Amino acid sequence: MASIEIGQPLTARGKATRARIVEAATELVRAHGVANTSLDAVLAASDTSKSQLYHYFADKDDLVLAVIQRQTECVLATHESHLRKLHSLAGLRRWRDAVVELSRQTDCAGGCPLGSLVSELAESPRPRELLAESFARWEALLVAGFRAIQARSGTRRDCDLTELATVVLAALQGGLLLAQTTRSTRALELALDMAIDHVEAHLA
Amino acid sequence: MASIEIGQPLTARGKATRARIVEAATELVRAHGVANTSLDAVLAASDTSKSQLYHYFADKDDLVLAVIQRQTECVLATHESHLRKLHSLAGLRRWRDAVVELSRQTDCAGGCPLGSLVSELAESPRPRELLAESFARWEALLVAGFRAIQARSGTRRDCDLTELATVVLAALQGGLLLAQTTRSTRALELALDMAIDHVEAHLA
Repeated sequence: MASIEIGQPLTARGKATRARIVEAATELVRAHGVANTSLDAVLAASDTSKSQLYHYFADKDDLVLAVIQRQTECVLATHESHLRKLHSLAGLRRWRDAVVELSRQTDCAGGCPLGSLVSELAESPRPRELLAESFARWEALLVAGFRAIQARSGTRRDCDLTELATVVLAALQGGLLLAQTTRSTRALELALDMAIDHVEAHLA
Repeated sequence: MASIEIGQPLTARGKATRARIVEAATELVRAHGVANTSLDAVLAASDTSKSQLYHYFADKDDLVLAVIQRQTECVLATHESHLRKLHSLAGLRRWRDAVVELSRQTDCAGGCPLGSLVSELAESPRPRELLAESFARWEALLVAGFRAIQARSGTRRDCDLTELATVVLAALQGGLLLAQTTRSTRALELALDMAIDHVEAHLA
């Protein structure tokens, strides 16, 4: 439950302070995980006071929900920039290359910023729901891309685009998890290639 | 670094005490994660003293390595019981059904007992190496199964069985992660079906 009452709009300064807290918390959670991120560390990193933090967030759980939302916007913005221009399978393979390159640039550290939150948060109802919504939005981006590919190619084969999006996302998540563990993008490349071949077989 | 010197064998009673500590720690880590599992909680759950624990483990990091090893043995034993009898694609689909059923029985809670350790532990070198070894052993079980399928069918198509195992494991991990988040086995089913179709296309 948010500590700010509904209907009480934030001032520009209030918004900036809240955003600074969320940004600091998101970076700390990304680096150390939720359990290893204390509110004191968030206060220090965002240069805010405890009373400021409790003005915007009821407690750590409430702040964690904002972290999930912030991380979701970041991840989806990255993928949307590639997927919204999609109109061919070649474009889908360029998205695959971009995902692999992003992982390579960080030596596969940290895995997926959203997927890596699942093991720590998915046993609590509200964080789990938020993460499920995030993945559903991610799938919707893929579905829109698949539709654009179909529209451009003029084919309209009868297939469930949401199911195709689910398997692409599963391959991406599993590939990133194995890449993080092995410190090699190989598993990610192979998993995404399999998934895109699967999409091609069903769309084309 | 283990606190027990190399070459100093444990007595039967020592082995039992050590196993009790590892078992309790494994259950606590499975339920609450590594960061949320204190050594005090492990002592209470295993009914051992601090001096006993430090006789067998240098510190929490050392105990966590034993937890990874214990969880690896459990997970691989489950999969080996299905995969060692493998000699057909129908058998591989029965393994898929067993994996899905296992997930359904727990309402998809907790995800993969090994995969869920990755986000918390894969940024530390030694745990990451151990987890990579665990996944490599898991892949080796799949490769042995694929070889048995090839041997029985008499085909020997030129394909990289380790790469096939990697994509099956990626599909399994990604499918379990999405299943845990959505509390539905659907993503797991779809991901494994895609992976087994991929295996079939390359093996058959």
